[in-house]
Amino acid sequence: GAAPAVHAQAAVRWRLASSFPKSLDTIYGAAEVMSKAVRAMSGGKFEISVHAGGELMPPFGVVDGVQNGTVEMTHTVPYYFYGKNPAFALGSAIPFGLNARQMTAWMMHGNGRKLMNELYATYGMVSYAGGNTGVQMGGWYRKEIKSLADFKGMKMRLGGGLVGEVMQGLGAVPQSIPGGEIYQALEKGTIDAAEWVGPYDDQKLGFNKVAPYYYYPGWWEGGPEVDFYANQKAVDSLSAENKAILETACAMASTDMLAKYDAFNPTALKQLVAAKTKVLPFPQDVLEGSFKAAMTVFEANNAKSPEWKKIYADLRNFQRDQVLWFRFAEAKFDSFMATRKL
Amino acid sequence: GAAPAVHAQAAVRWRLASSFPKSLDTIYGAAEVMSKAVRAMSGGKFEISVHAGGELMPPFGVVDGVQNGTVEMTHTVPYYFYGKNPAFALGSAIPFGLNARQMTAWMMHGNGRKLMNELYATYGMVSYAGGNTGVQMGGWYRKEIKSLADFKGMKMRLGGGLVGEVMQGLGAVPQSIPGGEIYQALEKGTIDAAEWVGPYDDQKLGFNKVAPYYYYPGWWEGGPEVDFYANQKAVDSLSAENKAILETACAMASTDMLAKYDAFNPTALKQLVAAKTKVLPFPQDVLEGSFKAAMTVFEANNAKSPEWKKIYADLRNFQRDQVLWFRFAEAKFDSFMATRKL
Repeated sequence: GAAPAVHAQAAVRWRLASSFPKSLDTIYGAAEVMSKAVRAMSGGKFEISVHAGGELMPPFGVVDGVQNGTVEMTHTVPYYFYGKNPAFALGSAIPFGLNARQMTAWMMHGNGRKLMNELYATYGMVSYAGGNTGVQMGGWYRKEIKSLADFKGMKMRLGGGLVGEVMQGLGAVPQSIPGGEIYQALEKGTIDAAEWVGPYDDQKLGFNKVAPYYYYPGWWEGGPEVDFYANQKAVDSLSAENKAILETACAMASTDMLAKYDAFNPTALKQLVAAKTKVLPFPQDVLEGSFKAAMTVFEANNAKSPEWKKIYADLRNFQRDQVLWFRFAEAKFDSFMATRKL
Repeated sequence: GAAPAVHAQAAVRWRLASSFPKSLDTIYGAAEVMSKAVRAMSGGKFEISVHAGGELMPPFGVVDGVQNGTVEMTHTVPYYFYGKNPAFALGSAIPFGLNARQMTAWMMHGNGRKLMNELYATYGMVSYAGGNTGVQMGGWYRKEIKSLADFKGMKMRLGGGLVGEVMQGLGAVPQSIPGGEIYQALEKGTIDAAEWVGPYDDQKLGFNKVAPYYYYPGWWEGGPEVDFYANQKAVDSLSAENKAILETACAMASTDMLAKYDAFNPTALKQLVAAKTKVLPFPQDVLEGSFKAAMTVFEANNAKSPEWKKIYADLRNFQRDQVLWFRFAEAKFDSFMATRKL
């Protein structure tokens, strides 16, 4: 018979600069889950080495790193780059935005991925889903929150530029503090409050010992998407097989991260409660006042950034229908189950 | 330099027998999404042809088909095979079970996949996630449901053996009718009610014209997982690359299906409401009575099937923590958003 058609595929070696420390095993770990799948599917012919935040470049320097080709890829949170263009935030989470399922639906079968990639193309990048944490918690507070007025003058550690602007609208004073220094700042009282992620990640840092009030929900992160960004030219140089392998591995790793958070958060929450954490909902006027403050910032962004304006309008339009639909079967099922003794 | 290491990979051709008709484009389509990704990632060296329900074998004959090697793979709903062993249902949905995110978490990072694969191994099969519809709707009714008593004697078309047993506990008379014949049965009044999936799929069949009351939630399917089953020997014969390709493609297709339902259901719901569908929640006593009836059937299954007993205990244990956790950040965020004008 004829000789089989064989072809040698050149090995491809990429480097990925993460924005996350290894200690955040769920978030950081998604890049390793992706990399491992790429290696397995390509039989080792496509390798992506994963480097923790700070190892190759500063955690917030990763977009520059991908844009100028220092690394082929990053794993990061789009809203970190709010300062480059407010529209980046729309690729991860905006206050009172989509929940995790809605975000995935907008990205995969709404206009989300397409619109965000139009923005990223101006940075020479293309994006892939890289995980989601689900609704985050609203942070740790040294004192009980009784009303919106308690945010006036509050020094609070916050993770992003957009939520910082909204919090300023409430009279709070946003603080930028690395994860490793938050505990001490709360203990000394140089800050009054700090948000991090949710029970599983927060528990590791021991905040409950110095700020026992743990509020929910983190209205600024209803379903924050973490993303992989890849350098467009590097992607263009991949074989069709490797392009598909990269895209599929990212989708799997993204789902895997949310599943990890969902599986691991409950145990951490129970342990935090057992350790005398006071888990409380934000008072209604805090949510309403924050919603109003967010809308003011969004309006300002509409005037500042045409990219924000275009993508925000699409997201809100999608969200309107999502919120309508989730009120029916999903909300009713979950709320009934919450009343059952299982 | 040294000659590159080259090797010819033999082409692999599999057949997948779906349980679904092509008209259910979201559910049926997930197998095509998976197959397309496998083909792309393998450069055409691994091809899985997808065959609609009935094309190669009856829609409910697919487990036998995979077990005896007639086909290498199927795409189906585990609870269809409740008659083989009640424990099959635990791999997709049981009444008042896990929602979609919780199901994925149990499968990926709880014991779900491991335990279900122990069961499937006795059929010579291994499973992969193959999609989720999210919480389904509770079906179409010719008359308004005022209380639990309205289910007495109600002839209702239902999709699975387990929900049928629970409904019998309420005094209903489950009917097994193929999708294409439900409309006429409702119109003629030979049945009083019928459940199908949710707005996007239901709308195509036009039920609202003959049974205007559309209830929620479908408490028997809080987050039904659709699965791919593959013949174990066929999987064993794959290269390590193709095993990884198959697994990753399934994970991606699974997420893609839920995202499609979430993206497409709202528009269908709005159109159904515009066409005078009466969308109503089940009365509280219906949910409570159904919950009780479900628990009775579950107890009976504990006595009947050791596999059910073992896996059910694990699922409930996982669910207890999930429901606790989802009551906090997720429920509060969603319920606040439901009150906003966006």
